[in-house]
Amino acid sequence: MNAVVMKFGGTSVADAEKIRAAARRAIRARRRGRQVVMVVSAMGKTTDELHELAGQVTDSPPKREMDQLLATGEQVTISLMAMALQQMGWPAISFTAGQIGLITDDVHTKARIKRIDVQRVRRELDAGRIVIVAGFQGVTEKGAVTTLGRGGSNVTLVAIAASLAAECENYTDVDGIYTADPRIVPNARKLDRISYDEMLELASLGASVLHNRAVEFAKKYDVPIHVRSSLTHRKGTMIVAETEEMERIVVSGAALKKALARITLKNVPDRPGVAASIFHALAAANIVVDDIIQTETTRKLATVAFTVDLPDLPDARKVCRELCGTMKGMTAEFEDGLAKVSVVGVGMRVHTGVAQRMFAAFGKAGINIRNITTSEIKISCIVDRAEGPKALRLVHDAFDLGKTPTRRMTRSRKKGQIR
Amino acid sequence: MNAVVMKFGGTSVADAEKIRAAARRAIRARRRGRQVVMVVSAMGKTTDELHELAGQVTDSPPKREMDQLLATGEQVTISLMAMALQQMGWPAISFTAGQIGLITDDVHTKARIKRIDVQRVRRELDAGRIVIVAGFQGVTEKGAVTTLGRGGSNVTLVAIAASLAAECENYTDVDGIYTADPRIVPNARKLDRISYDEMLELASLGASVLHNRAVEFAKKYDVPIHVRSSLTHRKGTMIVAETEEMERIVVSGAALKKALARITLKNVPDRPGVAASIFHALAAANIVVDDIIQTETTRKLATVAFTVDLPDLPDARKVCRELCGTMKGMTAEFEDGLAKVSVVGVGMRVHTGVAQRMFAAFGKAGINIRNITTSEIKISCIVDRAEGPKALRLVHDAFDLGKTPTRRMTRSRKKGQIR
Repeated sequence: MNAVVMKFGGTSVADAEKIRAAARRAIRARRRGRQVVMVVSAMGKTTDELHELAGQVTDSPPKREMDQLLATGEQVTISLMAMALQQMGWPAISFTAGQIGLITDDVHTKARIKRIDVQRVRRELDAGRIVIVAGFQGVTEKGAVTTLGRGGSNVTLVAIAASLAAECENYTDVDGIYTADPRIVPNARKLDRISYDEMLELASLGASVLHNRAVEFAKKYDVPIHVRSSLTHRKGTMIVAETEEMERIVVSGAALKKALARITLKNVPDRPGVAASIFHALAAANIVVDDIIQTETTRKLATVAFTVDLPDLPDARKVCRELCGTMKGMTAEFEDGLAKVSVVGVGMRVHTGVAQRMFAAFGKAGINIRNITTSEIKISCIVDRAEGPKALRLVHDAFDLGKTPTRRMTRSRKKGQIR
Repeated sequence: MNAVVMKFGGTSVADAEKIRAAARRAIRARRRGRQVVMVVSAMGKTTDELHELAGQVTDSPPKREMDQLLATGEQVTISLMAMALQQMGWPAISFTAGQIGLITDDVHTKARIKRIDVQRVRRELDAGRIVIVAGFQGVTEKGAVTTLGRGGSNVTLVAIAASLAAECENYTDVDGIYTADPRIVPNARKLDRISYDEMLELASLGASVLHNRAVEFAKKYDVPIHVRSSLTHRKGTMIVAETEEMERIVVSGAALKKALARITLKNVPDRPGVAASIFHALAAANIVVDDIIQTETTRKLATVAFTVDLPDLPDARKVCRELCGTMKGMTAEFEDGLAKVSVVGVGMRVHTGVAQRMFAAFGKAGINIRNITTSEIKISCIVDRAEGPKALRLVHDAFDLGKTPTRRMTRSRKKGQIR
């Protein structure tokens, strides 16, 4: 099927002029003979304004009603987009999630998509219409409105593209995924392609282009996502399934989490269930814990250190002090001046020496590494916050991320694999 | 069933404080053991703002998309109302029209209700919840969002009350229906009761409390509507089916249309289809024609005079000039300084001398009557606009509308009827 699903986020539909610009982009694809679905978010700050309205009548909005409220934001955009397209002479029709049977579970404010009745969309596409779908929302089997949580419009994008076996384009205010944040690393380079797993790691590290749930969804259904600018027609970055070829590149990107705090709990009773109760208490207070390091100090006591985003520190401090009050001898230490530099690449699976190269770069520059955590495709170092940007630039250079990687061995090796 | 359906219009839910006030009123009824459904409109000027947004992307909004857009207004109010109620400790749940299967035809922007799946509402009421329903909106069999046109929230009110066999309360910024507009007639008196037909006539004459479609709907299903103030707890006016007793009162109310224009078409060919073509052309230009008077001048020519609301005169003038261009000999005259005073009462059906009493009052005061039109329960006189308010006060006094009518004969007569 010759269809493309284009997603436009809140800033890309923030006013009438931007809505028209997005409409023109859909028309451009339509003129080229493509069938076009647009997935749109709420205009600009609409969602914030709706949150504020709710705040005026309640201090703890019930989630079902919050979803009922928030879903109006996208409904406004879809109808305006359909109007703009028709005004330009192109047949178009808007759909809420309910109208295309985008069914989710009933976990309000972060529902998961169960299925889409894509026939309705297909009929309209076959009739020549541009179809506009409200992002971020769904309905339960019983018809209650749900929302899909942070990054939800991208989940809608991927779900519809998967259902239609269509191409998937995510229009944003950046022109793709970079080897590092160009505001910190001047020679950062736009990537042509990146694997789902690498993107997942980078998103967890604060690269805010695509939320993890959308990428996980794309990975599950193997839907390549084209992340590109809504301001230009240049190609952006394709987020795709991992290929053998990708493993030739050791590190694909680097990221910096600028403001972290570390909490170190000492004399933690080293018996089953204690760690669980600590992190349960933190989760109950809505604190997202970043990395965790546990070390046994004696046979009966352990040290548990973990990092949280700096804004969560006051809440985390409160929770930890309460925990210390209930567990005899346990003490808590708090540090608020930290940052985390990470390198990510599927090539780490087959290459060695990655960690050394990173540590050497830091050592040479006199940067002290406060903690190290790793995953199969990621190495992270905690450093002092003041040294974060410098550390990011150092690793970016240490792995030559500013240079386009050579690919001369790729073809022969791939051929060899197929045989 | 011990249920009440309360409708709150846009001004009664214009901000958080007013939403809380409406919520408190629902709670008051709930405390007294009533089951409560609230029907709410969009907050304050929301609908105007949505119209304005549409105007920024198109000069001729497609009606389906306009409905999709406008329906968000009520959806915002229902969710906020449910939040406010829950914040006050009362279980509540909000429903869009789609969520309670309020099915309409597919005439977008002025759809008519076909049916309501009231079981969903009933289940929630039986579970002890206050149910909040979005007014003004419906969905088609296929799930497209529709709106019910002007006064649509009141149509929703009546439809739900009828479905639940519940009481029906319309909360507004006035405290009931008056014998005349109190701003013009200082001794105007609030009516305890008024019949559907009288209300229909008064609404057509510009009494803006309830739109005709809602009253027609209430009449059809015999749902009494209590029109009352959202600011006090005093009883308002009941709009009810006509009773024998009502006919004892000759005139129930008087009304003034302040700004009318009259168009007189002369030398109109007096043959079938000509009048139809004239009023078809006016309707096509969205001009609402008020009263029509046709008089035969010769055997082949007629004079057709009709009134329109003053703001429609420029459009009407254009249409009539075009008509004169196509019909040989026909001429058009335009007058823009007119008003219409009317008296309404089901008692006119059985009483005589009503018209004379009205004409005598005008004659005594030297007010010239420019046109007279009547219906079974209404007499209207066109007068010069400058004399409109005075003429309204005159008829109000001529029929003693400021005094509570005596009812001493009522009981015996009713008994007689029943025997």
